[in-house]
Amino acid sequence: METQVIELGYALDTFYFLIAGAFVMWMAAGFTMLEAGLVRSKSTVEILTKNIALFSIACVMYMVVGYNIMYSDGISSLIPGLSFFIGGDNSAADVVASGGDIYYSNMADFFFQVVFVATAMSIVSGVVAERMKLWAFLAFTVVLTGLIYPIQGYWSWGGGILSDLGYSDYAGSGIVHFTGAVAALAGVLLLGPRKGKFGPNGQVNALPGANLPLATLGTFILWLGWFGFNGGSELKVSDVGSANAVAQVFTNTNLAAAGGVIAAMITSRLAFGKVDLTMVLNGALAGLVAITADPASPSALLATLIGAIGGVIVVFSILGFEKIKIDDPVGALSVHGVAGIWGVLAVLLSNDEATLGGQLAGLALIGGFVFVASLVIWLILKAVMGLRISEEDEQEGVDSVECGMEAYPEFTNK
Amino acid sequence: METQVIELGYALDTFYFLIAGAFVMWMAAGFTMLEAGLVRSKSTVEILTKNIALFSIACVMYMVVGYNIMYSDGISSLIPGLSFFIGGDNSAADVVASGGDIYYSNMADFFFQVVFVATAMSIVSGVVAERMKLWAFLAFTVVLTGLIYPIQGYWSWGGGILSDLGYSDYAGSGIVHFTGAVAALAGVLLLGPRKGKFGPNGQVNALPGANLPLATLGTFILWLGWFGFNGGSELKVSDVGSANAVAQVFTNTNLAAAGGVIAAMITSRLAFGKVDLTMVLNGALAGLVAITADPASPSALLATLIGAIGGVIVVFSILGFEKIKIDDPVGALSVHGVAGIWGVLAVLLSNDEATLGGQLAGLALIGGFVFVASLVIWLILKAVMGLRISEEDEQEGVDSVECGMEAYPEFTNK
Amino acid sequence: METQVIELGYALDTFYFLIAGAFVMWMAAGFTMLEAGLVRSKSTVEILTKNIALFSIACVMYMVVGYNIMYSDGISSLIPGLSFFIGGDNSAADVVASGGDIYYSNMADFFFQVVFVATAMSIVSGVVAERMKLWAFLAFTVVLTGLIYPIQGYWSWGGGILSDLGYSDYAGSGIVHFTGAVAALAGVLLLGPRKGKFGPNGQVNALPGANLPLATLGTFILWLGWFGFNGGSELKVSDVGSANAVAQVFTNTNLAAAGGVIAAMITSRLAFGKVDLTMVLNGALAGLVAITADPASPSALLATLIGAIGGVIVVFSILGFEKIKIDDPVGALSVHGVAGIWGVLAVLLSNDEATLGGQLAGLALIGGFVFVASLVIWLILKAVMGLRISEEDEQEGVDSVECGMEAYPEFTNK
Repeated sequence: METQVIELGYALDTFYFLIAGAFVMWMAAGFTMLEAGLVRSKSTVEILTKNIALFSIACVMYMVVGYNIMYSDGISSLIPGLSFFIGGDNSAADVVASGGDIYYSNMADFFFQVVFVATAMSIVSGVVAERMKLWAFLAFTVVLTGLIYPIQGYWSWGGGILSDLGYSDYAGSGIVHFTGAVAALAGVLLLGPRKGKFGPNGQVNALPGANLPLATLGTFILWLGWFGFNGGSELKVSDVGSANAVAQVFTNTNLAAAGGVIAAMITSRLAFGKVDLTMVLNGALAGLVAITADPASPSALLATLIGAIGGVIVVFSILGFEKIKIDDPVGALSVHGVAGIWGVLAVLLSNDEATLGGQLAGLALIGGFVFVASLVIWLILKAVMGLRISEEDEQEGVDSVECGMEAYPEFTNK
Repeated sequence: METQVIELGYALDTFYFLIAGAFVMWMAAGFTMLEAGLVRSKSTVEILTKNIALFSIACVMYMVVGYNIMYSDGISSLIPGLSFFIGGDNSAADVVASGGDIYYSNMADFFFQVVFVATAMSIVSGVVAERMKLWAFLAFTVVLTGLIYPIQGYWSWGGGILSDLGYSDYAGSGIVHFTGAVAALAGVLLLGPRKGKFGPNGQVNALPGANLPLATLGTFILWLGWFGFNGGSELKVSDVGSANAVAQVFTNTNLAAAGGVIAAMITSRLAFGKVDLTMVLNGALAGLVAITADPASPSALLATLIGAIGGVIVVFSILGFEKIKIDDPVGALSVHGVAGIWGVLAVLLSNDEATLGGQLAGLALIGGFVFVASLVIWLILKAVMGLRISEEDEQEGVDSVECGMEAYPEFTNK
Repeated sequence: METQVIELGYALDTFYFLIAGAFVMWMAAGFTMLEAGLVRSKSTVEILTKNIALFSIACVMYMVVGYNIMYSDGISSLIPGLSFFIGGDNSAADVVASGGDIYYSNMADFFFQVVFVATAMSIVSGVVAERMKLWAFLAFTVVLTGLIYPIQGYWSWGGGILSDLGYSDYAGSGIVHFTGAVAALAGVLLLGPRKGKFGPNGQVNALPGANLPLATLGTFILWLGWFGFNGGSELKVSDVGSANAVAQVFTNTNLAAAGGVIAAMITSRLAFGKVDLTMVLNGALAGLVAITADPASPSALLATLIGAIGGVIVVFSILGFEKIKIDDPVGALSVHGVAGIWGVLAVLLSNDEATLGGQLAGLALIGGFVFVASLVIWLILKAVMGLRISEEDEQEGVDSVECGMEAYPEFTNK
């Protein structure tokens, strides 16, 4: 009898973990639709290709090496080791003997973690859209998902230095989202803006996305997927306390997104006189990123406000990046980077165990390491194969040169 | 041991509730895609904006006030009170002490209920598409989701007058769908049809939707989401009887939609000589609405027939509304209103506890109250800010005046 | 107490089954979007209609007759009988008395199985796209889902001859995917290629799909849905062994798709000099089909390789079908047929209980029976009502003749 009860708990937690992971996998579709909707039609096939390819590469690299680094025993608190998890799962005897301390399948943990690394990489693809060489991007994907992400992930979630320093980041505002944005920033500084984005006299030209329903769909997909992203990060659901926590996380995640939408809508109305849909969509995502570092501690009302502040920040951040001539076609630097920083700091509002020092240490260490490591890789790739397609190819569209096909052959008159 | 078993049951029911709620949240994406596909391209950005904004406003208003009204102690069976739920969840001790009578997290209940109010409001947005002012619509959203929906919801699900009268509405054919349609009807009577929909000599002009794959996607999303909508409304899954009931609900929900598709397809083929895809999509939705008032009692075969009758009704209802010159761009009055009435009455076919008197009382009270209350709000909004955009703006497209951007800038030649 | 534990296990397994079924239902949306994206705009409404209609017909036919054949007692190991399941579910007393041997709701089993038959039929619709008469297709749907699929399904999963012969097919690489492809092959041989696909001098003309983001979305939907398709096929999750197996299945399913993407991307880059997105999408699907016959036994690495080989196969298979002038607009014969065969054989790599003889017997019996039975039905339909629309109608587009409406009325200039 007792055996059965322990096994049931293990089964429920494993199932919960797998469903959460499936929701996070679905975020790959969300990023794909969001980015495909926000680029011009001539760059759409390539962004679709990049997104499905980066997800696939992330999964394989993380299986082969990344997971084994991130959850290794570690050589020191800064330097991870290598542990090979593949080859076994918990036996029923071990689970029962643990009295419930082993409460989910190792393989389910791998599945849940692998979709997180793909999320981090998805952030990069939007920022460098429409002008980067496909294979340079894919090469970077190999390194980020196999090495850079796992090393900094080890620091927090694998028991390394940031867990020692008390850095608190429930589902990864910093570890996943900020990481993706910083890696992208390093790349875009080398890559430069799209041709025509900034005029000779400092004017900023809108290069409107080709398909806004698709971008909206992508946002909704991400919103849904985030229930898995944050909801699964409790890691356990099988007792009253855990179940309550997961319920709070679902509620807060939803309300933070709602707060982000409303705040971005009002902000854009006040700033521009009309409601800018792309700002509203980014407001939802900024709210989600902002709550990700701690969706369990705040009250529902506070979660809404944390999201709303994210929604205000993202509007001004997007305008700010344009002002300093950094061209981010989808706004991902603002959504995942700037709102990610806000999320890491917002933990201090409701979580007594977090400290300002710990949170700043997290941002500094993650930001510094990911930026420098990414820059080195981007520089190597630039030297070896070049990062940017030619000017004529960019004019013609990256789809033509990289994929040789059109996304909407019957809708556009080229 | 007993403690662990009770906690496990609580955890399973909470998890079930949260997953069901996440599926219902996904219906917001379904309504958005459905409506975006069925309007013309020049009104697409605004309908996207309206949908993501109404979902967000609904969530916040229902947290701040709506939920506290709907599940209050109540001043009388007609007048709800105010209870503030936020601030705590069930302790493990209380759950165990209840012996399993407390079987899910309060916060999970809030999450499940909040996505229902958003569903009701989503119904309105389609009916008034392409011609209503964005901010008038958003102002109405505040009142419907904060007050009107919760008050009538209190009558049935909060223990008010309709639960006393024996009104039976499992997941809300009346409480959610009919409510949304009646609120929309009140608005559209004041708003009038789109320019060009009805000709001077009584002819009805088709204003075809811009993107039928999107509308089809929206229908499939709603179909999927409905497994949460109906499936979660059993409120419990953790014993054999509840699990069987949930399984029956999933089966019946699916088959009612299938019946609606087949019936609408055959009806449109007989009526028009060809298969009208928009009728088929609305047939699926009408089948879903029709089974929502009782997806647990009918056999699988009866559920199919209830859905099929919904599919026939919706075709003639759509034609009927056109005949009386009510312009409903997406057919939501027919799908949610007329098929909602059918659903409330169809409960009598298989549920022995329901009475004709109780069902009619529900329709009369809900319909009467929601219509009058909504009409008052719409009239106030008309006086204060106006409901309708100008004729030139409508010609140009509501996207241009409200959002200043195009949904498909490269696909259409304006 | 013991009662409660057994009931909880039953509830968890039933819930797991229902969620898995809902994910598989979602695959219907995936096929719809995939096919709608890969056909030309003038054939889009009809493919949308076909897909939602076939899903609905499949559900109803399988309820009325199919399920009762497939899981009947059987007259012989080749000839199924008829059992009427509808009318009852397991009582709590029976479940408890079984000591946990009855571990899920009958109705949940029906729901899970019914979405599988719809999957098989979805495969057909893509292959015959753009030229088949709508009602001939729907008539075939009735027979495949009511008779042909259930009869061969009985052989394996209903306890018939193929289970006696040791044919091993966990979630249906052969029983579902290969079956769909063979039924489609019989049809397309009679139907012939689309006008203009093959030139007079043997050249193959590309007829590019109208909406590649939609096709990509469809692929992601299928990928997500496959977690239910394979993950639910363990049939149980409520003990440590089952939970571990389900976790392995999720991991392997994901990695096989990833392997398929990477392999197809590299293959198409080497073969064509550019990355063909449609090949990449079909690579993902081929990887998924390939792992479906045994997603539980292989290691994560082997699963990746099985998927990758599927991704290579599919590229050459698509080219091969073009070479022999079989026109398959979406590549489904290759994805589900050829990669399905590979999947059935790949079981031998990691599953010691499978035999080459058993696997070949499965392919031969399923392939032979489905091909002959389908051919007979297609021939009858050809004689009675004709399979193919007229040449002028095909020129004008099948949407116009069958549905009388356009998918994208504002985007294309006809």
